[in-house]
Amino acid sequence: MLKYQQTATEIEAYIEQHALQQGDKLPVLEQLIRQFQVSKTTMTKALELLERKGIIFQVRGSGIFVRKTNRKGYIKLFSTQGFKQNLVDHDIASNVLTFELIPCPDEIAQNVGSSPGEMVYYIKRIRYIDGNILCLEESYYRQAIVPYLNREIIEQSIFEYLETALGLNIGFSDMYMHVGKLTASIAGHLKLETGDPGLTIETVFHLTNGRPFDYSVITYHYEHSQFVVQANGLYL
Amino acid sequence: MLKYQQTATEIEAYIEQHALQQGDKLPVLEQLIRQFQVSKTTMTKALELLERKGIIFQVRGSGIFVRKTNRKGYIKLFSTQGFKQNLVDHDIASNVLTFELIPCPDEIAQNVGSSPGEMVYYIKRIRYIDGNILCLEESYYRQAIVPYLNREIIEQSIFEYLETALGLNIGFSDMYMHVGKLTASIAGHLKLETGDPGLTIETVFHLTNGRPFDYSVITYHYEHSQFVVQANGLYL
Repeated sequence: MLKYQQTATEIEAYIEQHALQQGDKLPVLEQLIRQFQVSKTTMTKALELLERKGIIFQVRGSGIFVRKTNRKGYIKLFSTQGFKQNLVDHDIASNVLTFELIPCPDEIAQNVGSSPGEMVYYIKRIRYIDGNILCLEESYYRQAIVPYLNREIIEQSIFEYLETALGLNIGFSDMYMHVGKLTASIAGHLKLETGDPGLTIETVFHLTNGRPFDYSVITYHYEHSQFVVQANGLYL
Repeated sequence: MLKYQQTATEIEAYIEQHALQQGDKLPVLEQLIRQFQVSKTTMTKALELLERKGIIFQVRGSGIFVRKTNRKGYIKLFSTQGFKQNLVDHDIASNVLTFELIPCPDEIAQNVGSSPGEMVYYIKRIRYIDGNILCLEESYYRQAIVPYLNREIIEQSIFEYLETALGLNIGFSDMYMHVGKLTASIAGHLKLETGDPGLTIETVFHLTNGRPFDYSVITYHYEHSQFVVQANGLYL
Protein backbone atom coordinates (compact mmCIF):
# COMPACT_ATOMS: atom_id res chain seq x y z
CA MET A 1 0.00 0.00 0.00
CA LEU A 2 1.41 3.38 -1.00
CA LYS A 3 1.78 6.25 1.45
CA TYR A 4 -1.20 8.24 0.13
CA GLN A 5 -3.39 5.11 0.23
CA GLN A 6 -2.34 4.58 3.84
CA THR A 7 -3.21 8.20 4.62
CA ALA A 8 -6.61 7.81 2.91
CA THR A 9 -7.29 4.75 5.06
CA GLU A 10 -6.38 6.71 8.19
CA ILE A 11 -8.72 9.55 7.23
CA GLU A 12 -11.52 7.04 6.67
CA ALA A 13 -10.85 5.65 10.14
CA TYR A 14 -10.90 9.21 11.53
CA ILE A 15 -14.32 9.79 9.93
CA GLU A 16 -15.61 6.55 11.47
CA GLN A 17 -14.14 7.19 14.92
CA HIS A 18 -15.64 10.66 15.09
CA ALA A 19 -18.97 9.39 13.68
CA LEU A 20 -18.97 12.19 11.11
CA GLN A 21 -22.13 12.53 9.05
CA GLN A 22 -23.04 13.68 5.54
CA GLY A 23 -22.02 17.31 5.13
CA ASP A 24 -19.75 17.46 8.21
CA LYS A 25 -16.63 19.48 7.54
CA LEU A 26 -13.13 18.04 7.86
CA PRO A 27 -10.21 20.13 9.11
CA VAL A 28 -8.63 22.39 6.49
CA LEU A 29 -5.80 21.06 4.33
CA GLU A 30 -2.97 22.58 6.37
CA GLN A 31 -4.35 21.09 9.56
CA LEU A 32 -4.85 17.66 7.98
CA ILE A 33 -1.19 17.77 6.84
CA ARG A 34 -0.03 18.50 10.38
CA GLN A 35 -2.43 16.01 11.94
CA PHE A 36 -1.50 13.06 9.71
CA GLN A 37 2.15 14.17 9.34
CA VAL A 38 2.45 13.78 5.58
CA SER A 39 3.54 16.05 2.74
CA LYS A 40 1.09 18.29 0.91
CA THR A 41 1.46 16.10 -2.21
CA THR A 42 0.59 12.94 -0.27
CA MET A 43 -2.40 14.58 1.40
CA THR A 44 -3.68 15.95 -1.91
CA LYS A 45 -3.48 12.49 -3.50
CA ALA A 46 -5.13 10.92 -0.45
CA LEU A 47 -8.03 13.40 -0.66
CA GLU A 48 -8.41 12.80 -4.42
CA LEU A 49 -8.63 9.06 -3.76
CA LEU A 50 -11.27 9.58 -1.05
CA GLU A 51 -13.24 11.81 -3.41
CA ARG A 52 -13.19 9.16 -6.15
CA LYS A 53 -14.28 6.55 -3.62
CA GLY A 54 -17.25 8.73 -2.66
CA ILE A 55 -16.08 9.22 0.95
CA ILE A 56 -15.69 13.01 0.78
CA PHE A 57 -16.41 15.93 -1.51
CA GLN A 58 -14.32 19.06 -1.86
CA VAL A 59 -15.81 22.49 -2.50
CA ARG A 60 -13.34 25.00 -3.85
CA GLY A 61 -12.91 27.91 -1.45
CA SER A 62 -15.20 26.30 1.10
CA GLY A 63 -13.70 23.09 2.46
CA ILE A 64 -13.67 19.31 2.58
CA PHE A 65 -16.90 17.57 3.55
CA VAL A 66 -17.98 14.05 4.45
CA ARG A 67 -20.23 11.96 2.23
CA LYS A 68 -22.14 9.29 4.04
CA THR A 69 -25.29 7.50 3.10
CA ASN A 70 -27.67 7.09 6.01
CA ARG A 71 -29.25 3.92 4.64
CA LYS A 72 -28.30 0.63 6.24
CA GLY A 73 -27.98 -2.82 4.71
CA TYR A 74 -26.88 -1.80 1.22
CA ILE A 75 -23.96 -3.51 -0.51
CA LYS A 76 -21.44 -1.16 -2.07
CA LEU A 77 -21.42 -1.95 -5.75
CA PHE A 78 -17.98 -1.75 -7.20
CA SER A 79 -16.29 -4.70 -8.51
CA THR A 80 -12.54 -4.82 -8.26
CA GLN A 81 -12.73 -5.80 -4.66
CA GLY A 82 -14.02 -9.18 -3.60
CA PHE A 83 -17.13 -9.53 -1.47
CA LYS A 84 -15.12 -9.95 1.67
CA GLN A 85 -13.61 -6.49 1.46
CA ASN A 86 -16.83 -4.83 0.30
CA LEU A 87 -18.84 -6.32 3.12
CA VAL A 88 -16.63 -6.02 6.16
CA ASP A 89 -19.65 -5.20 8.31
CA HIS A 90 -21.39 -8.43 7.37
CA ASP A 91 -20.85 -12.11 7.99
CA ILE A 92 -20.03 -13.58 4.58
CA ALA A 93 -19.80 -17.33 4.04
CA SER A 94 -19.50 -19.62 1.03
CA ASN A 95 -20.68 -23.11 0.18
CA VAL A 96 -18.62 -24.57 -2.66
CA LEU A 97 -20.80 -26.67 -4.97
CA THR A 98 -18.25 -27.37 -7.71
CA PHE A 99 -14.50 -26.93 -7.92
CA GLU A 100 -12.64 -28.38 -10.88
CA LEU A 101 -9.92 -27.74 -13.43
CA ILE A 102 -11.48 -27.99 -16.91
CA PRO A 103 -10.79 -27.01 -20.52
CA CYS A 104 -12.41 -23.61 -21.01
CA PRO A 105 -15.90 -23.94 -22.58
CA ASP A 106 -16.16 -22.20 -25.95
CA GLU A 107 -18.83 -19.72 -24.84
CA ILE A 108 -16.70 -18.70 -21.85
CA ALA A 109 -13.39 -18.39 -23.70
CA GLN A 110 -14.19 -15.10 -25.39
CA ASN A 111 -15.32 -13.55 -22.11
CA VAL A 112 -12.19 -14.45 -20.21
CA GLY A 113 -9.89 -13.79 -23.17
CA SER A 114 -8.48 -17.31 -23.31
CA SER A 115 -8.03 -19.73 -26.18
CA PRO A 116 -10.76 -22.38 -26.34
CA GLY A 117 -9.54 -25.43 -24.48
CA GLU A 118 -7.14 -23.49 -22.28
CA MET A 119 -7.36 -24.83 -18.71
CA VAL A 120 -9.47 -22.86 -16.24
CA TYR A 121 -10.54 -23.35 -12.65
CA TYR A 122 -14.33 -23.53 -12.58
CA ILE A 123 -15.90 -22.65 -9.25
CA LYS A 124 -19.57 -22.66 -8.38
CA ARG A 125 -20.44 -21.26 -4.96
CA ILE A 126 -23.43 -20.15 -2.97
CA ARG A 127 -22.55 -17.00 -1.02
CA TYR A 128 -24.33 -16.17 2.23
CA ILE A 129 -24.75 -12.82 3.94
CA ASP A 130 -25.54 -12.86 7.65
CA GLY A 131 -26.90 -16.38 7.27
CA ASN A 132 -29.14 -15.65 4.26
CA ILE A 133 -28.51 -16.70 0.66
CA LEU A 134 -26.97 -13.72 -1.13
CA CYS A 135 -26.18 -15.14 -4.56
CA LEU A 136 -25.10 -17.96 -6.81
CA GLU A 137 -21.65 -17.37 -8.30
CA GLU A 138 -19.96 -19.19 -11.14
CA SER A 139 -16.42 -18.14 -11.95
CA TYR A 140 -13.64 -19.14 -14.30
CA TYR A 141 -9.99 -18.42 -13.46
CA ARG A 142 -7.33 -18.90 -16.15
CA GLN A 143 -4.71 -21.35 -14.91
CA ALA A 144 -2.11 -19.56 -17.04
CA ILE A 145 -2.43 -16.64 -14.61
CA VAL A 146 -3.72 -18.34 -11.47
CA PRO A 147 -1.62 -21.53 -11.39
CA TYR A 148 -3.03 -22.98 -8.17
CA LEU A 149 -6.24 -22.89 -6.16
CA ASN A 150 -7.60 -25.30 -3.56
CA ARG A 151 -10.81 -25.72 -1.55
CA GLU A 152 -9.43 -24.00 1.51
CA ILE A 153 -8.65 -20.89 -0.53
CA ILE A 154 -11.96 -20.75 -2.37
CA GLU A 155 -13.96 -21.14 0.82
CA GLN A 156 -12.32 -17.88 1.91
CA SER A 157 -11.49 -14.82 -0.18
CA ILE A 158 -9.99 -15.76 -3.54
CA PHE A 159 -9.01 -12.17 -4.36
CA GLU A 160 -7.11 -11.77 -1.12
CA TYR A 161 -5.14 -14.93 -1.99
CA LEU A 162 -4.42 -13.67 -5.52
CA GLU A 163 -3.04 -10.41 -4.22
CA THR A 164 -1.18 -11.48 -1.11
CA ALA A 165 0.00 -15.01 -1.93
CA LEU A 166 0.37 -14.78 -5.73
CA GLY A 167 1.27 -11.08 -5.82
CA LEU A 168 -1.11 -10.36 -8.69
CA ASN A 169 -2.08 -6.72 -9.27
CA ILE A 170 -5.81 -6.61 -9.85
CA GLY A 171 -6.70 -3.73 -12.14
CA PHE A 172 -9.96 -2.90 -13.84
CA SER A 173 -13.14 -4.78 -14.62
CA ASP A 174 -16.02 -4.73 -17.07
CA MET A 175 -19.42 -5.45 -15.53
CA TYR A 176 -22.58 -6.35 -17.45
CA MET A 177 -25.89 -6.23 -15.61
CA HIS A 178 -29.35 -7.35 -16.49
CA VAL A 179 -32.54 -8.31 -14.73
CA GLY A 180 -34.64 -11.31 -15.70
CA LYS A 181 -36.72 -14.24 -14.55
CA LEU A 182 -34.86 -17.03 -12.77
CA THR A 183 -34.47 -20.39 -14.48
CA ALA A 184 -35.54 -23.46 -12.52
CA SER A 185 -31.91 -24.41 -11.94
CA ILE A 186 -30.81 -21.08 -10.51
CA ALA A 187 -34.05 -20.63 -8.56
CA GLY A 188 -33.40 -23.99 -6.94
CA HIS A 189 -29.95 -22.91 -5.76
CA LEU A 190 -31.33 -19.63 -4.38
CA LYS A 191 -34.37 -21.37 -2.81
CA LEU A 192 -36.70 -19.16 -4.86
CA GLU A 193 -39.42 -19.93 -7.39
CA THR A 194 -38.83 -20.32 -11.12
CA GLY A 195 -39.68 -16.99 -12.75
CA ASP A 196 -38.85 -14.91 -9.67
CA PRO A 197 -36.81 -11.76 -10.34
CA GLY A 198 -33.03 -11.98 -10.44
CA LEU A 199 -30.21 -9.51 -11.02
CA THR A 200 -27.33 -11.06 -12.93
CA ILE A 201 -23.93 -9.40 -13.04
CA GLU A 202 -21.22 -10.74 -15.34
CA THR A 203 -17.74 -9.39 -14.65
CA VAL A 204 -14.47 -9.70 -16.54
CA PHE A 205 -11.58 -8.93 -14.20
CA HIS A 206 -8.24 -7.75 -15.56
CA LEU A 207 -4.78 -7.38 -14.08
CA THR A 208 -3.25 -3.90 -14.10
CA ASN A 209 -1.35 -4.97 -17.24
CA GLY A 210 -4.68 -5.46 -19.01
CA ARG A 211 -4.76 -9.28 -19.09
CA PRO A 212 -8.16 -10.74 -18.21
CA PHE A 213 -7.84 -13.51 -15.62
CA ASP A 214 -11.34 -14.15 -14.24
CA TYR A 215 -14.86 -14.20 -15.64
CA SER A 216 -17.70 -14.48 -13.15
CA VAL A 217 -21.47 -14.67 -13.38
CA ILE A 218 -23.39 -13.82 -10.23
CA THR A 219 -27.15 -14.01 -9.77
CA TYR A 220 -28.43 -12.25 -6.68
CA HIS A 221 -31.29 -13.28 -4.40
CA TYR A 222 -33.63 -10.33 -4.88
CA GLU A 223 -34.90 -10.35 -1.32
CA HIS A 224 -31.43 -10.34 0.27
CA SER A 225 -29.54 -7.88 -1.87
CA GLN A 226 -29.66 -4.15 -2.44
CA PHE A 227 -26.86 -1.95 -3.62
CA VAL A 228 -25.52 1.55 -3.16
CA VAL A 229 -23.22 3.42 -5.52
CA GLN A 230 -21.65 6.67 -4.38
CA ALA A 231 -20.93 8.17 -7.78
CA ASN A 232 -19.14 11.38 -8.48
CA GLY A 233 -18.91 13.92 -11.23
CA LEU A 234 -15.98 12.37 -13.03
CA TYR A 235 -17.94 11.99 -16.18
CA LEU A 236 -19.09 15.52 -16.70
CA MET B 1 -15.33 22.77 -20.15
CA LEU B 2 -11.74 22.95 -18.94
CA LYS B 3 -8.78 22.44 -21.26
CA TYR B 4 -7.96 18.92 -20.06
CA GLN B 5 -11.62 17.91 -20.40
CA GLN B 6 -11.58 19.22 -23.96
CA THR B 7 -8.40 17.22 -24.66
CA ALA B 8 -9.96 14.09 -23.17
CA THR B 9 -12.98 14.55 -25.46
CA GLU B 10 -10.65 14.89 -28.46
CA ILE B 11 -8.79 11.71 -27.54
CA GLU B 12 -12.11 9.87 -27.23
CA ALA B 13 -13.01 11.12 -30.71
CA TYR B 14 -9.59 9.95 -31.97
CA ILE B 15 -10.25 6.46 -30.55
CA GLU B 16 -13.65 6.39 -32.28
CA GLN B 17 -12.38 7.72 -35.62
CA HIS B 18 -9.58 5.15 -35.75
CA ALA B 19 -11.96 2.41 -34.59
CA LEU B 20 -9.45 1.35 -31.93
CA GLN B 21 -10.28 -1.83 -30.05
CA GLN B 22 -9.70 -3.21 -26.56
CA GLY B 23 -5.94 -3.48 -25.94
CA ASP B 24 -4.89 -1.26 -28.87
CA LYS B 25 -2.00 0.98 -27.95
CA LEU B 26 -2.21 4.77 -28.12
CA PRO B 27 0.79 6.92 -29.13
CA VAL B 28 3.31 7.52 -26.34
CA LEU B 29 2.87 10.54 -24.06
CA GLU B 30 5.34 12.79 -25.88
CA GLN B 31 3.64 12.11 -29.21
CA LEU B 32 0.15 12.73 -27.76
CA ILE B 33 1.40 16.08 -26.41
CA ARG B 34 2.66 17.10 -29.87
CA GLN B 35 -0.40 15.73 -31.64
CA PHE B 36 -2.99 17.49 -29.45
CA GLN B 37 -0.77 20.54 -28.84
CA VAL B 38 -1.23 20.78 -25.09
CA SER B 39 1.10 20.94 -22.10
CA LYS B 40 2.32 17.80 -20.34
CA THR B 41 0.22 18.74 -17.30
CA THR B 42 -2.95 19.04 -19.38
CA MET B 43 -2.29 15.76 -21.19
CA THR B 44 -1.59 13.94 -17.91
CA LYS B 45 -4.87 15.22 -16.44
CA ALA B 46 -6.74 14.29 -19.63
CA LEU B 47 -5.36 10.75 -19.49
CA GLU B 48 -6.25 10.42 -15.81
CA LEU B 49 -9.81 11.48 -16.61
CA LEU B 50 -10.04 8.93 -19.44
CA GLU B 51 -8.70 6.24 -17.11
CA ARG B 52 -11.34 7.06 -14.47
CA LYS B 53 -14.03 6.97 -17.17
CA GLY B 54 -12.88 3.49 -18.21
CA ILE B 55 -11.85 4.60 -21.72
CA ILE B 56 -8.14 3.71 -21.40
CA PHE B 57 -5.76 1.96 -19.06
CA GLN B 58 -2.16 2.88 -18.47
CA VAL B 59 0.56 0.31 -17.79
CA ARG B 60 3.66 1.73 -16.19
CA GLY B 61 6.67 1.30 -18.45
CA SER B 62 4.54 -0.19 -21.19
CA GLY B 63 2.09 2.35 -22.57
CA ILE B 64 -1.46 3.61 -22.84
CA PHE B 65 -4.11 1.18 -24.06
CA VAL B 66 -7.74 1.37 -25.15
CA ARG B 67 -10.57 -0.17 -23.14
CA LYS B 68 -13.60 -0.99 -25.18
CA THR B 69 -16.36 -3.42 -24.48
CA ASN B 70 -17.35 -5.42 -27.54
CA ARG B 71 -20.93 -5.91 -26.37
CA LYS B 72 -23.62 -3.85 -28.05
CA GLY B 73 -26.85 -2.49 -26.67
CA TYR B 74 -25.74 -1.91 -23.09
CA ILE B 75 -26.48 1.32 -21.26
CA LYS B 76 -23.53 2.85 -19.46
CA LEU B 77 -24.49 2.98 -15.83
CA PHE B 78 -23.24 6.11 -14.19
CA SER B 79 -25.53 8.66 -12.92
CA THR B 80 -24.37 12.22 -12.93
CA GLN B 81 -25.17 12.51 -16.59
CA GLY B 82 -28.70 12.39 -17.82
CA PHE B 83 -29.92 9.70 -20.17
CA LYS B 84 -29.48 11.86 -23.20
CA GLN B 85 -25.73 12.13 -22.77
CA ASN B 86 -25.29 8.49 -21.72
CA LEU B 87 -27.21 7.20 -24.69
CA VAL B 88 -26.03 9.30 -27.61
CA ASP B 89 -26.11 6.25 -29.87
CA HIS B 90 -29.79 5.68 -29.18
CA ASP B 91 -33.04 7.43 -29.93
CA ILE B 92 -34.36 8.58 -26.53
CA ALA B 93 -37.84 10.02 -26.14
CA SER B 94 -40.09 10.95 -23.24
CA ASN B 95 -43.78 10.97 -22.58
CA VAL B 96 -44.67 13.27 -19.70
CA LEU B 97 -47.50 11.83 -17.60
CA THR B 98 -47.47 14.35 -14.77
CA PHE B 99 -45.84 17.74 -14.32
CA GLU B 100 -46.73 19.84 -11.33
CA LEU B 101 -45.40 22.09 -8.60
CA ILE B 102 -46.33 20.58 -5.23
CA PRO B 103 -45.40 20.76 -1.55
CA CYS B 104 -42.75 18.08 -1.01
CA PRO B 105 -44.33 14.87 0.34
CA ASP B 106 -42.96 13.90 3.76
CA GLU B 107 -41.45 10.60 2.61
CA ILE B 108 -39.59 12.38 -0.21
CA ALA B 109 -38.32 15.32 1.84
CA GLN B 110 -35.60 13.39 3.65
CA ASN B 111 -34.32 11.95 0.36
CA VAL B 112 -34.02 15.28 -1.40
CA GLY B 113 -32.81 17.09 1.70
CA SER B 114 -35.65 19.59 1.79
CA SER B 115 -37.96 20.72 4.55
CA PRO B 116 -41.39 19.03 4.46
CA GLY B 117 -43.74 21.27 2.53
CA GLU B 118 -40.98 22.98 0.53
CA MET B 119 -42.12 23.35 -3.08
CA VAL B 120 -40.82 20.77 -5.57
CA TYR B 121 -41.43 20.09 -9.24
CA TYR B 122 -42.83 16.57 -9.52
CA ILE B 123 -42.36 14.93 -12.90
CA LYS B 124 -43.52 11.52 -13.98
CA ARG B 125 -42.29 10.37 -17.37
CA ILE B 126 -42.11 7.26 -19.48
CA ARG B 127 -38.75 7.12 -21.23
CA TYR B 128 -38.37 5.29 -24.54
CA ILE B 129 -35.23 3.86 -26.11
CA ASP B 130 -35.32 3.26 -29.87
CA GLY B 131 -39.11 3.15 -29.71
CA ASN B 132 -39.33 0.68 -26.81
CA ILE B 133 -40.33 1.48 -23.24
CA LEU B 134 -37.12 1.87 -21.25
CA CYS B 135 -38.38 2.95 -17.84
CA LEU B 136 -40.83 4.82 -15.66
CA GLU B 137 -39.23 7.79 -13.95
CA GLU B 138 -40.54 9.89 -11.08
CA SER B 139 -38.43 12.84 -10.03
CA TYR B 140 -38.59 15.70 -7.57
CA TYR B 141 -36.66 18.92 -8.17
CA ARG B 142 -36.38 21.48 -5.38
CA GLN B 143 -37.76 24.81 -6.57
CA ALA B 144 -35.34 26.59 -4.23
CA ILE B 145 -32.56 25.42 -6.55
CA VAL B 146 -34.41 24.89 -9.83
CA PRO B 147 -36.71 27.93 -9.92
CA TYR B 148 -38.32 27.20 -13.27
CA LEU B 149 -39.20 24.23 -15.46
CA ASN B 150 -41.75 23.83 -18.21
CA ARG B 151 -43.10 21.05 -20.42
CA GLU B 152 -40.83 21.87 -23.31
CA ILE B 153 -37.75 21.49 -21.11
CA ILE B 154 -38.83 18.28 -19.43
CA GLU B 155 -39.68 16.66 -22.73
CA GLN B 156 -36.01 17.15 -23.62
CA SER B 157 -32.96 16.81 -21.37
CA ILE B 158 -33.55 18.43 -17.97
CA PHE B 159 -29.90 18.12 -16.95
CA GLU B 160 -28.69 19.90 -20.05
CA TYR B 161 -31.06 22.76 -19.21
CA LEU B 162 -29.85 22.88 -15.59
CA GLU B 163 -26.24 23.16 -16.68
CA THR B 164 -26.47 25.39 -19.72
CA ALA B 165 -29.46 27.62 -18.99
CA LEU B 166 -29.34 27.76 -15.18
CA GLY B 167 -25.56 27.37 -14.87
CA LEU B 168 -25.84 24.78 -12.11
CA ASN B 169 -22.78 22.65 -11.43
CA ILE B 170 -23.93 19.08 -11.05
CA GLY B 171 -21.66 17.20 -8.71
CA PHE B 172 -22.05 13.77 -7.16
CA SER B 173 -24.91 11.37 -6.63
CA ASP B 174 -25.95 8.54 -4.36
CA MET B 175 -27.67 5.64 -6.11
CA TYR B 176 -29.67 2.90 -4.41
CA MET B 177 -30.56 -0.19 -6.42
CA HIS B 178 -32.80 -3.11 -5.78
CA VAL B 179 -34.68 -5.73 -7.77
CA GLY B 180 -38.23 -6.77 -7.05
CA LYS B 181 -41.61 -7.70 -8.44
CA LEU B 182 -43.53 -4.95 -10.22
CA THR B 183 -46.64 -3.53 -8.63
CA ALA B 184 -49.79 -3.43 -10.78
CA SER B 185 -49.45 0.32 -11.20
CA ILE B 186 -45.86 0.31 -12.40
CA ALA B 187 -46.39 -2.82 -14.52
CA GLY B 188 -49.25 -1.01 -16.24
CA HIS B 189 -47.04 1.92 -17.17
CA LEU B 190 -44.32 -0.41 -18.49
CA LYS B 191 -46.86 -2.63 -20.28
CA LEU B 192 -45.67 -5.65 -18.31
CA GLU B 193 -47.45 -8.06 -15.97
CA THR B 194 -47.85 -7.53 -12.23
CA GLY B 195 -45.07 -9.50 -10.52
CA ASP B 196 -42.67 -9.28 -13.46
CA PRO B 197 -39.07 -8.43 -12.54
CA GLY B 198 -38.01 -4.81 -12.23
CA LEU B 199 -34.80 -2.99 -11.40
CA THR B 200 -35.42 0.16 -9.38
CA ILE B 201 -32.75 2.81 -9.01
CA GLU B 202 -33.25 5.71 -6.62
CA THR B 203 -30.78 8.56 -7.05
CA VAL B 204 -30.10 11.67 -5.00
CA PHE B 205 -28.27 14.22 -7.14
CA HIS B 206 -26.13 16.94 -5.54
CA LEU B 207 -24.58 20.12 -6.81
CA THR B 208 -20.79 20.40 -6.55
CA ASN B 209 -21.36 22.43 -3.37
CA GLY B 210 -23.01 19.40 -1.80
CA ARG B 211 -26.64 20.58 -1.89
CA PRO B 212 -29.10 17.90 -3.03
CA PHE B 213 -31.46 19.22 -5.71
CA ASP B 214 -33.13 16.19 -7.31
CA TYR B 215 -34.41 12.83 -6.10
CA SER B 216 -35.47 10.36 -8.76
CA VAL B 217 -36.91 6.86 -8.74
CA ILE B 218 -36.57 4.89 -11.97
CA THR B 219 -37.96 1.43 -12.64
CA TYR B 220 -36.54 -0.23 -15.74
CA HIS B 221 -38.32 -2.48 -18.20
CA TYR B 222 -36.32 -5.69 -17.74
CA GLU B 223 -36.56 -6.73 -21.38
CA HIS B 224 -35.35 -3.38 -22.75
CA SER B 225 -32.51 -2.52 -20.41
CA GLN B 226 -29.09 -3.91 -19.69
CA PHE B 227 -26.15 -2.06 -18.26
CA VAL B 228 -22.40 -1.94 -18.50
CA VAL B 229 -20.00 -0.50 -15.94
CA GLN B 230 -16.37 -0.06 -16.85
CA ALA B 231 -14.89 -0.02 -13.37
CA ASN B 232 -11.32 0.59 -12.46
CA GLY B 233 -9.02 -0.20 -9.61
CA LEU B 234 -9.54 2.98 -7.68
CA TYR B 235 -10.74 1.15 -4.66
CA LEU B 236 -7.84 -1.22 -4.10
